[in-house]
Amino acid sequence: MVPASPEDLLDSVPPGGEEKNTSLLPFTKKVVLDTSLFVNPDVRKSLGETPAEALDTFLFLAARIPILEFYMPPSILEELLHFVGRDKIPSDLLLVLHQKPPKRYDLKIPALLLYELIEDMRDRVNKGLRVAEKAVRNAEKVRQEENIQDLRKKYREALREGIIDSKEDVDLLLLAMELEALLITADQGLITWAEKLGIRWLFPERFKDYLIGAIKKSELHTSKTKE
Amino acid sequence: MVPASPEDLLDSVPPGGEEKNTSLLPFTKKVVLDTSLFVNPDVRKSLGETPAEALDTFLFLAARIPILEFYMPPSILEELLHFVGRDKIPSDLLLVLHQKPPKRYDLKIPALLLYELIEDMRDRVNKGLRVAEKAVRNAEKVRQEENIQDLRKKYREALREGIIDSKEDVDLLLLAMELEALLITADQGLITWAEKLGIRWLFPERFKDYLIGAIKKSELHTSKTKE
Repeated sequence: MVPASPEDLLDSVPPGGEEKNTSLLPFTKKVVLDTSLFVNPDVRKSLGETPAEALDTFLFLAARIPILEFYMPPSILEELLHFVGRDKIPSDLLLVLHQKPPKRYDLKIPALLLYELIEDMRDRVNKGLRVAEKAVRNAEKVRQEENIQDLRKKYREALREGIIDSKEDVDLLLLAMELEALLITADQGLITWAEKLGIRWLFPERFKDYLIGAIKKSELHTSKTKE
Repeated sequence: MVPASPEDLLDSVPPGGEEKNTSLLPFTKKVVLDTSLFVNPDVRKSLGETPAEALDTFLFLAARIPILEFYMPPSILEELLHFVGRDKIPSDLLLVLHQKPPKRYDLKIPALLLYELIEDMRDRVNKGLRVAEKAVRNAEKVRQEENIQDLRKKYREALREGIIDSKEDVDLLLLAMELEALLITADQGLITWAEKLGIRWLFPERFKDYLIGAIKKSELHTSKTKE
């Protein structure tokens, strides 16, 4: 899978874009953000030490990018609030990061995806049973609490990793689909499904580079319009 | 859930049906059949002692019903062949029971169903883990093989029952959707999804009554056209 590079996504011009665009700004692009960008330590580190700090850095940068519109489904913001705290949400967020749920009752998905999802789940369910059986067979050899911890870990790996498994995940995918937006997430399950649904996505660890590139492009454009 | 009664499904006339219908037969109705009708002992018993016998009875009756068209996805027929044997398939079947896969690449389903499916799976996955943990905790008390048999049974109940969990299930649903057909199955997971998708369904144990009712209606129509 080859995602869009930060440069590609900023340089492309929509069909007839430059001419038809009547505002002073170039065509505004929509971006849908996942909590994982602020919560996952590997991805977050370029933005900040803590989720709150990463969010602050993002908002600071995003406020300087008039050519991008940032969206987050309310269910995903709710997840973020577990890490940041509702009272610590900067007021910038309310202006810069638009909260929009997808049109759940309007959207349709190709039936073919139902096959893929169900076949995938079937394999995982079988794998989960094998993990469970192994834990029972190990019961004589391993201490019970250790065995159960190990079971939980392996079971979650088998049944949860690399799959969409929550309504928050579905919200992100559908919103990106509805808005024809770029999806930025660190969740491999979401990226796999973005591929299936034709949704653009970005290497999550390049998120900050993408924002900085977008600031440069916005400034370039502003100075051009001033000349 | 109130399914169509055998009589309702035979009596209803399509919009403008009687007048526009140029053949001598009343509007032909489409019916999609699941293997469970021939394989599930509770449902099969009115048709025959064995799956082969039940299939024979069905074909005998179905050949007398010009007002119904019977369909089965090839994947479902494949399942049936595990019980009946390819060489024992009566040649009537080839004429009476049409094999048609759904148009998998054309059909779309409401995105809302994705939420329901994923939330349902999430609950089941959690339940499966609890079943597995319990088996590990029981390991000291119960004989290992017994414990594993019990784990398998409870795990399957938690993760498989009342849900669509195979591509064969999806084939049945999509074919019934595509043909706007009546779905006849003994699988509760399929019935639940038929409800969500607006697909007509029938109490499976009334399947034979439905066929007999349809024979009577066909005969009545034939004698009317002769008068």
